[in-house]
Amino acid sequence: MTATAADLVLNRGLLLTVDAENRVIPDGAVAVRDGRIAAVGTTAELSGLPAAEVIDARGGIIMPGLVNTHTHAAMTLFRGLADDLPLMAWLNEHIFPAEAGLDAEQVRSGALLACAEMILSGTTTFCDMYLFAAAVGRAAQQAGMRAVVGEVLFDFPSPAYGDAENGFACTQRLIDAFRGDPLISVAVEPHSPYLCRPELLERAFRLAQRHGLPMVIHLAETSGEVETIIARYGRTPVGHLAALGLLAPNVLACHCVALTEDDIGLLQAHAVKVSHNPESNMKLASGIAPVPRLLAAGICVGLGTDGAASNNNLDLFQEMDTAAKLHKGQTLDPTVMDAQTVLRMATIDGARALGLGERIGSIEAGKQADLIVLDTRKPHLTPMYHPASHLVYAARGSDVATVVIAGRVVLRDRRILTFDAQAAMDEVNRLAAAIRARK
Amino acid sequence: MTATAADLVLNRGLLLTVDAENRVIPDGAVAVRDGRIAAVGTTAELSGLPAAEVIDARGGIIMPGLVNTHTHAAMTLFRGLADDLPLMAWLNEHIFPAEAGLDAEQVRSGALLACAEMILSGTTTFCDMYLFAAAVGRAAQQAGMRAVVGEVLFDFPSPAYGDAENGFACTQRLIDAFRGDPLISVAVEPHSPYLCRPELLERAFRLAQRHGLPMVIHLAETSGEVETIIARYGRTPVGHLAALGLLAPNVLACHCVALTEDDIGLLQAHAVKVSHNPESNMKLASGIAPVPRLLAAGICVGLGTDGAASNNNLDLFQEMDTAAKLHKGQTLDPTVMDAQTVLRMATIDGARALGLGERIGSIEAGKQADLIVLDTRKPHLTPMYHPASHLVYAARGSDVATVVIAGRVVLRDRRILTFDAQAAMDEVNRLAAAIRARK
Repeated sequence: MTATAADLVLNRGLLLTVDAENRVIPDGAVAVRDGRIAAVGTTAELSGLPAAEVIDARGGIIMPGLVNTHTHAAMTLFRGLADDLPLMAWLNEHIFPAEAGLDAEQVRSGALLACAEMILSGTTTFCDMYLFAAAVGRAAQQAGMRAVVGEVLFDFPSPAYGDAENGFACTQRLIDAFRGDPLISVAVEPHSPYLCRPELLERAFRLAQRHGLPMVIHLAETSGEVETIIARYGRTPVGHLAALGLLAPNVLACHCVALTEDDIGLLQAHAVKVSHNPESNMKLASGIAPVPRLLAAGICVGLGTDGAASNNNLDLFQEMDTAAKLHKGQTLDPTVMDAQTVLRMATIDGARALGLGERIGSIEAGKQADLIVLDTRKPHLTPMYHPASHLVYAARGSDVATVVIAGRVVLRDRRILTFDAQAAMDEVNRLAAAIRARK
Repeated sequence: MTATAADLVLNRGLLLTVDAENRVIPDGAVAVRDGRIAAVGTTAELSGLPAAEVIDARGGIIMPGLVNTHTHAAMTLFRGLADDLPLMAWLNEHIFPAEAGLDAEQVRSGALLACAEMILSGTTTFCDMYLFAAAVGRAAQQAGMRAVVGEVLFDFPSPAYGDAENGFACTQRLIDAFRGDPLISVAVEPHSPYLCRPELLERAFRLAQRHGLPMVIHLAETSGEVETIIARYGRTPVGHLAALGLLAPNVLACHCVALTEDDIGLLQAHAVKVSHNPESNMKLASGIAPVPRLLAAGICVGLGTDGAASNNNLDLFQEMDTAAKLHKGQTLDPTVMDAQTVLRMATIDGARALGLGERIGSIEAGKQADLIVLDTRKPHLTPMYHPASHLVYAARGSDVATVVIAGRVVLRDRRILTFDAQAAMDEVNRLAAAIRARK
């Protein structure tokens, strides 16, 4: 790179590019200009570059920000409200009644708290599905986070938009509201085959295709869902979408726990993307998704936390650890889901799953500058033989010191710069008191 | 309690006693005198008590220190040295060669680093099995941690004591060295039925019974082990110990992944204790221990991390989360391993597993003052409806602010007071450079 000025340089860190070669640069540096990565190299190579600001990452790891491919951010409001219950009791007796009382401002508050938690644990992009999605987008804007937001669509009335028929108008308004936004994009998000008639699914898919947006859907989350869909339509959930012609490379299927070999073949054939949510699937006793088989089929799999009510945290470092270990324990093969593979799932493959693989997910010149720095000078990260191993098996979200999103420093020395995190906590505590009182 | 002076009072916190009734005291306080818990109550109830030192736990949780029932502390030296490998390749090509070069001083250095990590994540007691166990005990003494240490015994020569025959003399010296120590106690620790002849196992058991010590052993860790033992002795590992007359309430069986119903019946009948190590069992692809069935049989189960080379962290908060979720995902029953049960496994049941149930593991007057304070004023712990849920599903070791062991403050505002943690890291980094060079 020529010696033109950079807005920001991060240097002196162990730099993991997560590029196609998983290139690691000891004493690495990255230069940022106009929100993008302008140059990547050694600290020495970039030392001639005048920079408005330099962040010294000595003793740390510089890596791409993490990508959470599936969450319901505002459900931080219900974190730990009810646990250890059968799914239907949890939903019908606790979550749905609590959600019925939501409004847009409460969703914004819950989502903003989620942004605080995600930034503090190294996530720079999240894909959300919820009620009042515009409020989630506004929270992400306020936090300076990158997000894909979508209004959840289903066959019954929504607290957000009333009659089911209004869902598409609501989604259209969402598309219009965030058109051209540098950080926020929109997805079309029918909830699931079991809560959406075929006509709704088809209409959602057409809308997504018309605008070139992702379509995000819960799919094959439980064997109960599979039984329901087979009883209704004579096909598995994946087979049902395939028969409707709704499988395509811009479809992000969340969970995919209960899959047949034929289902995997269909996902592969149509280049459908998968969001793997191991902790939520475990906690809700949905089961264990066959991720090693998905990867063997060449399917793109990203990681997600799901909402804070079924996890109960949004820490993708912990999710990486769980994902890497779970499938070893399940398959009895210690070589599956190696650290590098899982690290890619939480970064570049998550980006690809959201249709953002050209923009984020790795540290390469020209991409958006979504970067995090971990402080590894800690007992639990000492010694370090292989950085990817540490990131997956030993690091915690709390090791993240610095977060940069689109070139803007949003976390410095674990202090959030974009909004008042304490006020966000205070507000959610106030809302929680009311939620508790309603029970 | 009468108004005599306390050495230390922790107050204004949400106090979880983890006593028989799981009593929770909002605005709770605990007074410490002579290393023991002198009184437990509300802040108001204990406010009349003159105290030499007061720790204000406002906005936090006061709870018993965590008990790690199985680790190999010094293996921090090999954290991340090799991962994602078949067990025998991992052991024979990486771990055993690295261990062959160890000496007592290196073990002490690795164990001291482990103590730093454990203290920083809220563990106050650990049960260790390793080479040069006296050095592990010295590290724990230096750190001010409570520990049960044992010299690993097997049929072949040890880098620590030479010929196998010397193992018992080594154990006897260990017993003598720590007799009467306020923090360090000793266990007799034959490695496993597959590395120990029946004569060694019997002799170890007799030694443990003679001194009233725990006998700690790896048992039924993998189905491969079960096959080996059946081929050799015609019985499962548990059945083999039973036939030798070596099952008793002071036996701590680590792992117990591959159990038959008969095995569970034997463990139950003899009141054997179990150490559950879910993350290590997953990472090494050993499998998933049938813990819900052990609990249903009334067997006492504690949690353990195993060593840092097969986890790769010693964070019991993360281990609780994994334990609670794993068995839900495995059994497809979301009601198993509820948060309160798992919290007890990491505290009082772990204490009972080590034969220390009368001394530690809960906050009750007369017990040793092993206490931790978590700072819960953080986005990922907001809001809080049920504290046990947060401790298991949302908290991280890094939320621990204060640690008290036997009445001594060893961690304050995340700063270790008992030794120089930076020097411990520096020393292990120095040793790691040599380990790396040897490969």
